[in-house]
Amino acid sequence: MTTYWCERAWLGSSGFVDGVVVAVDGPHITNVSEGEPPQVAERLSGLTIPGFANCHSHAFHRALRARTQQQRGDFWTWRETMYAVADRLDPDTYYALALATYREMALTGITAVGEFHYLHHGPGGAPYDDANAMGHAVVQAARDAGLRIALLDTCYLSAGFGAEPSGVQRRFSDGTVDAWRDRVSALDADVADPAVVVGAAIHSVRAVPHTALGDVASALPKAPLHVHLSEQVAENTACLQRHGCTPTQLLAVHGVLSERLSAVHATHLTASDIALLGQAKCNACFCPTTERDLADGIGPSRQLADAGATLTLGSDSHAVIDMHEEMRAVELDERLGSGRRGSWAAADLLHAATAGGHRSLGFTAGEIAPGAWADLVTLDPSSPRTAGTAADCGTVVFAATAADVTSVIASGRRVELDPDAVGRDLARSISAVTAP
Amino acid sequence: MTTYWCERAWLGSSGFVDGVVVAVDGPHITNVSEGEPPQVAERLSGLTIPGFANCHSHAFHRALRARTQQQRGDFWTWRETMYAVADRLDPDTYYALALATYREMALTGITAVGEFHYLHHGPGGAPYDDANAMGHAVVQAARDAGLRIALLDTCYLSAGFGAEPSGVQRRFSDGTVDAWRDRVSALDADVADPAVVVGAAIHSVRAVPHTALGDVASALPKAPLHVHLSEQVAENTACLQRHGCTPTQLLAVHGVLSERLSAVHATHLTASDIALLGQAKCNACFCPTTERDLADGIGPSRQLADAGATLTLGSDSHAVIDMHEEMRAVELDERLGSGRRGSWAAADLLHAATAGGHRSLGFTAGEIAPGAWADLVTLDPSSPRTAGTAADCGTVVFAATAADVTSVIASGRRVELDPDAVGRDLARSISAVTAP
Repeated sequence: MTTYWCERAWLGSSGFVDGVVVAVDGPHITNVSEGEPPQVAERLSGLTIPGFANCHSHAFHRALRARTQQQRGDFWTWRETMYAVADRLDPDTYYALALATYREMALTGITAVGEFHYLHHGPGGAPYDDANAMGHAVVQAARDAGLRIALLDTCYLSAGFGAEPSGVQRRFSDGTVDAWRDRVSALDADVADPAVVVGAAIHSVRAVPHTALGDVASALPKAPLHVHLSEQVAENTACLQRHGCTPTQLLAVHGVLSERLSAVHATHLTASDIALLGQAKCNACFCPTTERDLADGIGPSRQLADAGATLTLGSDSHAVIDMHEEMRAVELDERLGSGRRGSWAAADLLHAATAGGHRSLGFTAGEIAPGAWADLVTLDPSSPRTAGTAADCGTVVFAATAADVTSVIASGRRVELDPDAVGRDLARSISAVTAP
Repeated sequence: MTTYWCERAWLGSSGFVDGVVVAVDGPHITNVSEGEPPQVAERLSGLTIPGFANCHSHAFHRALRARTQQQRGDFWTWRETMYAVADRLDPDTYYALALATYREMALTGITAVGEFHYLHHGPGGAPYDDANAMGHAVVQAARDAGLRIALLDTCYLSAGFGAEPSGVQRRFSDGTVDAWRDRVSALDADVADPAVVVGAAIHSVRAVPHTALGDVASALPKAPLHVHLSEQVAENTACLQRHGCTPTQLLAVHGVLSERLSAVHATHLTASDIALLGQAKCNACFCPTTERDLADGIGPSRQLADAGATLTLGSDSHAVIDMHEEMRAVELDERLGSGRRGSWAAADLLHAATAGGHRSLGFTAGEIAPGAWADLVTLDPSSPRTAGTAADCGTVVFAATAADVTSVIASGRRVELDPDAVGRDLARSISAVTAP
């Protein structure tokens, strides 16, 4: 049992409150009391918020940061560079790279990650002796970095509508949806850690035949379910040609839409798509820094929320790992698209990055409240970036950066903040998979 | 005479070079040699680049950071909040706030600032005993922060096309263009510091009658000239109604377009506007983080450069002070608008933030080359943000943030990097002008 005294903490609908005492037993918060003076407790000076949920991660993409920027082209040309890194990974190098990436996340106040995991098999698609060797590697990396993880084990069976996987894509494919389900079920049975959730993912309507969509959705009926949705116009066009409907409509027809679902990106949607996702109370997982980087476009975040969807956030390709930047980018990109300010209140963006996100990953967390996972992230309200602001949600969302994080407690344990060590781990693990 | 050994430095068209020795005498670089081993010299470990030029600043807007984000509305509603701060400033509070803001800039590697200065007079528009008291305050703030400054003394005579200034706007106005010129000429005569340039600015075609545009442009015939241009569609519409042409065309007719001119924002342009600005070899000063914040839109940066204009960058309202963010935002916003990657190479964005920018402010700087002002900014290539990248322009533009700056030498003098002290100065000076 540890007691923390927070100089000023965010209590959700109550806003920021001075003098909050948080009692933590093991990995969970057991009690929260307000308006308390400093006392014999671990002192958290500054602004304390719940930990962030990074709901969409491809850990190994961290190796590409700033390395694809000389390229012209689009999402599809970028993907070739990404595939070249994927092709070099094995369980050991994947573990090392994911560990370094997750440690970078932990430094920034992320306490849980949703890993959209599709690199399952060895070269040419041959299974490893343990068919879940890659999944276990990434789960272990998260545990060793102090993060909770939702391993979103991804079904990938075709390279386009009906096209056979080729090249590195063969490492993604289990061949059939039944083989995918057998492997995932084995992984799920192996895991006995409440900080690890095994969920399912449909890579995209390009990569899972429509006849198998319902099977993926029902394989883990209580677990989170994620899908890349309409990130690219080309996907919509191809889906319309093949099935005569949008990707969202195709998912709806096959019973994929539900509160369990996170629709990742959800960039190029029709009004009907927005209504469907909203009515089903899906999560809409925006990844704005990646969507900028990949020239995807600006998705209808406000309209989705107004229709009933829950906004969540992810750093996806890790061009940037900074949830402050993801939060404000939702609103700022909306402004660029609409010419209006204030579609998103700062508090609602902070909810998306915390409570909304954790719930979408299957964790009761993201609130400083009894029963929640004990994640406490403290920010400096007096740095050159944050000084002079009102020490409120506006500060957290519109002024702070990851460099303002001064203390991280994740699942009840203090994360050692050693940026030099994380930098060394990143350099070493990335060099191992990018050096000529 | 001081000699610096740079582990790796950016030499413009030669790219990044290992082992660069830079000899500095007083405020200038006297010699640069490449491929040198470490020697008896001050060692700059990491990536060394020239200092940044922040070409468009309203120093006092720093007080608004993260404080206007609960507002809905647009540029015009935001402006009311900004006016409320402007109305409370006097030479002392203006000096203190500008000093703290410029010190924040210095921490981030900015070595010269272009201050678009229009808050000239006392309450109600009454001149101070020294009519340039406010201008002197801001110049002294820059000097005390270790920055060079181009004080762009701004002519503001009307609140719209032909409307009388009201409220705080009366503090901006000299009444007539002749009175403005007399005051500016006196200021120019007072300044005898090569690190201070007095330039002119046309606030906008809204605020200077068309008959006076040529007078402002010719008042300081060798100095920089800046103008807010087509930031808002409403300005274009009003100009078209009043003059039957676009703001750019109006400036062209009155001889304002030249290599001396920086067209700030240049967001909503016609093809003809772009051609005019390009043919005249104007600077196009983009302020992407402010343009996001104010819901201005995405300007045609690539088309302007292709037409012959020079891109420069500014942090304008200081919602963010981080030239890395400004550089990458140009390309990332272009991607959101166009759906294509790679309109801007990282090296060209770094040029915009350095050599291009300093030249637009009237300084020979922004290059690590003999004769240039001695600005050397060093970045950590091994931080959690930058580790694993290629230690090249991609690292500087797409991975680093202001938090990665480890050493700043500005005009030959080392800037003390004390973020805690800067945070305290910001909090105190902002509280003085925002507390109820």
